[in-house]
Amino acid sequence: MIKVSNKTNNQIELLCIGTELLLGNIVNGNARWLAEELARLGIPHFRQTVVGDNRERLMEVVLEASRRCRVLICTGGLGPTPDDLTTETLAAAFNAPLEERSEVLADIKAKLSARGRPMAANNCKQALLPAGATVLSNPLGTAPGMIWSPLENFSLLTFPGVPAEMQAMWEQTAVPWLQQQGLTSGIFRSRLLRFWGIAESSLAEQVAPFLEQQNPTVAPYAGRGEVKLRITAWADNGEAADALIAPVEQQLRQIGGSNYFGADGDSLASVVLACLRERGETLAVAESCTSGGVGAALGAVPGASDVFLGGVIAYANGIKQTLLGVPADTLANHGAVSEAVAIAMAEGVRQTTGADWGVAVTGIAGPAGGSASKPVGLVHFGVAGPEKSFGFMRLYGASRGREWIRGLSVGDALDQLRLALA
Amino acid sequence: MIKVSNKTNNQIELLCIGTELLLGNIVNGNARWLAEELARLGIPHFRQTVVGDNRERLMEVVLEASRRCRVLICTGGLGPTPDDLTTETLAAAFNAPLEERSEVLADIKAKLSARGRPMAANNCKQALLPAGATVLSNPLGTAPGMIWSPLENFSLLTFPGVPAEMQAMWEQTAVPWLQQQGLTSGIFRSRLLRFWGIAESSLAEQVAPFLEQQNPTVAPYAGRGEVKLRITAWADNGEAADALIAPVEQQLRQIGGSNYFGADGDSLASVVLACLRERGETLAVAESCTSGGVGAALGAVPGASDVFLGGVIAYANGIKQTLLGVPADTLANHGAVSEAVAIAMAEGVRQTTGADWGVAVTGIAGPAGGSASKPVGLVHFGVAGPEKSFGFMRLYGASRGREWIRGLSVGDALDQLRLALA
Repeated sequence: MIKVSNKTNNQIELLCIGTELLLGNIVNGNARWLAEELARLGIPHFRQTVVGDNRERLMEVVLEASRRCRVLICTGGLGPTPDDLTTETLAAAFNAPLEERSEVLADIKAKLSARGRPMAANNCKQALLPAGATVLSNPLGTAPGMIWSPLENFSLLTFPGVPAEMQAMWEQTAVPWLQQQGLTSGIFRSRLLRFWGIAESSLAEQVAPFLEQQNPTVAPYAGRGEVKLRITAWADNGEAADALIAPVEQQLRQIGGSNYFGADGDSLASVVLACLRERGETLAVAESCTSGGVGAALGAVPGASDVFLGGVIAYANGIKQTLLGVPADTLANHGAVSEAVAIAMAEGVRQTTGADWGVAVTGIAGPAGGSASKPVGLVHFGVAGPEKSFGFMRLYGASRGREWIRGLSVGDALDQLRLALA
Repeated sequence: MIKVSNKTNNQIELLCIGTELLLGNIVNGNARWLAEELARLGIPHFRQTVVGDNRERLMEVVLEASRRCRVLICTGGLGPTPDDLTTETLAAAFNAPLEERSEVLADIKAKLSARGRPMAANNCKQALLPAGATVLSNPLGTAPGMIWSPLENFSLLTFPGVPAEMQAMWEQTAVPWLQQQGLTSGIFRSRLLRFWGIAESSLAEQVAPFLEQQNPTVAPYAGRGEVKLRITAWADNGEAADALIAPVEQQLRQIGGSNYFGADGDSLASVVLACLRERGETLAVAESCTSGGVGAALGAVPGASDVFLGGVIAYANGIKQTLLGVPADTLANHGAVSEAVAIAMAEGVRQTTGADWGVAVTGIAGPAGGSASKPVGLVHFGVAGPEKSFGFMRLYGASRGREWIRGLSVGDALDQLRLALA
């Protein structure tokens, strides 16, 4: 091992490898995800670099980083194709020979065979790692990563560029390793509070004093419809961190009121399903403009099937009549995008499926199909329950575009059902 | 001016400045946007760096870059608040004094006054630029950028981090400057070919010679089920680039055979819809484990409603019987996850909706619900058309997890329908 001096302590850097990033084909979501994780773990990092799948330039960047930082976290370039050259380039940068790891080869073979795929010659190269490197196993794909310390006080971690694989490997093996190395200091715990039906700027204004405080910190994040507040506390141990978080969480939830719907891994769908499960009731959907999006969101939650029965995708008006029993004159008098039709759809799906609750969506997602009285972005909803039915509407505005309008519609349908069940 | 040697010609790099990027609060959309622009202009860039709003580290990164590249494009840190320190740090890095630009000060004053805002002391600092720098005026906001050559053969361009402002300034002033400098050369065009039903490694092996060639280049990308090949050509003009791409595209499509399904913005859903539209036929879906995912994918395509009628989400067995007419004894004899039930669902939805085609999915997405004979990841599909019905199945393997299994099921359902329509 070569002695490296002149390095400022425990610095960590990110290196994302991929020509597609330099061509602007994709956004660097991995850098954001890892940055958020490092912040959560209390590990500061001061630099991110992106290079293409180019041997010479990658080597230059890695050698530079090895003189600056203690840990370099690399993503990308671990696939089977010739342009995936991260592992071999890192090995060459530090003059280490590549070795075939038989356990990795066996794992790749088993995964491919389970998927009914042959082992390509390309795949064999994914089993080659530098001598001395530890395999960072990939529970999802064929590309393993590694943890390798080619120099004293300098370690490389490599991850595939596929986000799901990188994230699973990070959580299962990289985080424990960072903790073992003493790179995490104390413990950071965080809690994500989830809100729907309020703008990020409004929520941020209401919780402004919290955004200034230090431990725990509170940071807002906005998605498409959902707003999140992340509370992060640092302490010597988990209980102490939780004790810092609890009172802040309580206050933030109080401020959020009924806009608060869940925490951490909750989703609007999972909260609705849990609520119905507790009541021993079932749910069905009737979807026009979302065309299955509400059903897909519900079905994404493991175990949904004991509460969620299914429903009808009623894109065509004929289906609204035949499968949901919406009367022809309701359609003729009010139009397919109307409160009357939305309620009739919700009541119809409740009746035809025997579910306790029915929720319906009908709207104009665009880009075509809008009119002066019914513009693109107008969506009507219906909720039918054991005791009553009700409708509501939203005007999302055409500028948000088809996908965003459909996504907000799915969220608002589930959110109003949640409030009706509360 | 200091003479800088040892620099490889016209290299350009991106530097994005902002602590929010290092905390993972936002994704680096500016890097992606600028990367795409540079590719479009035929300007290769080989590195992107991200640093926080920190004087010392920013200075270090800029001085390093000045030894490597001809142009450094910087975003972020031009705002009025104390953590915005890009301009003053760049000036300090090259020992240049800051000068107040009266025309910039007047512009800031005018903009603030138009918004009914007072001129804050903070805003005055935005009028300070290094001696010798040219103002890169900001048509939207108060933060101007600059074009500055502090060293021979090294220029800095600065832009605010606000995407709309950065983009407007880029188009109005930066692009003409890059052209004047002779940095734009020819034009890059690219074409994305999309494949389904083949592993990235297999496709890459089949097209291996193409992956080695230079103009156009061919690079493979894998998603969840979909594999893409991007062909990128460089030429003096668009037609010449297209002429380089065309023969390669033709050969790659021939190699991909029926796994090739579309190019650029196509999706499996859009291709299926276009094919049905051409035939004057309609489609309905019957979904169990995907619970609306196939419908949502079809509905995501603008204008889907003239072909896609809707369908039934048959999560519960009762719905498979009542709304799809699957016989009780088919369910009892074969189980809900079986080819017989999948075909009966497809035929049932075809009949009940009057669609020309019905496609059905029933499977075990997990994590629970698997058995030795019907493991998690087993999915049966049915396709019913005007002339015949057929079933097929996939074993995705439990390790891929619920979301991935559901996503692959949506793709395979659409893909087999596509092949049936071909």
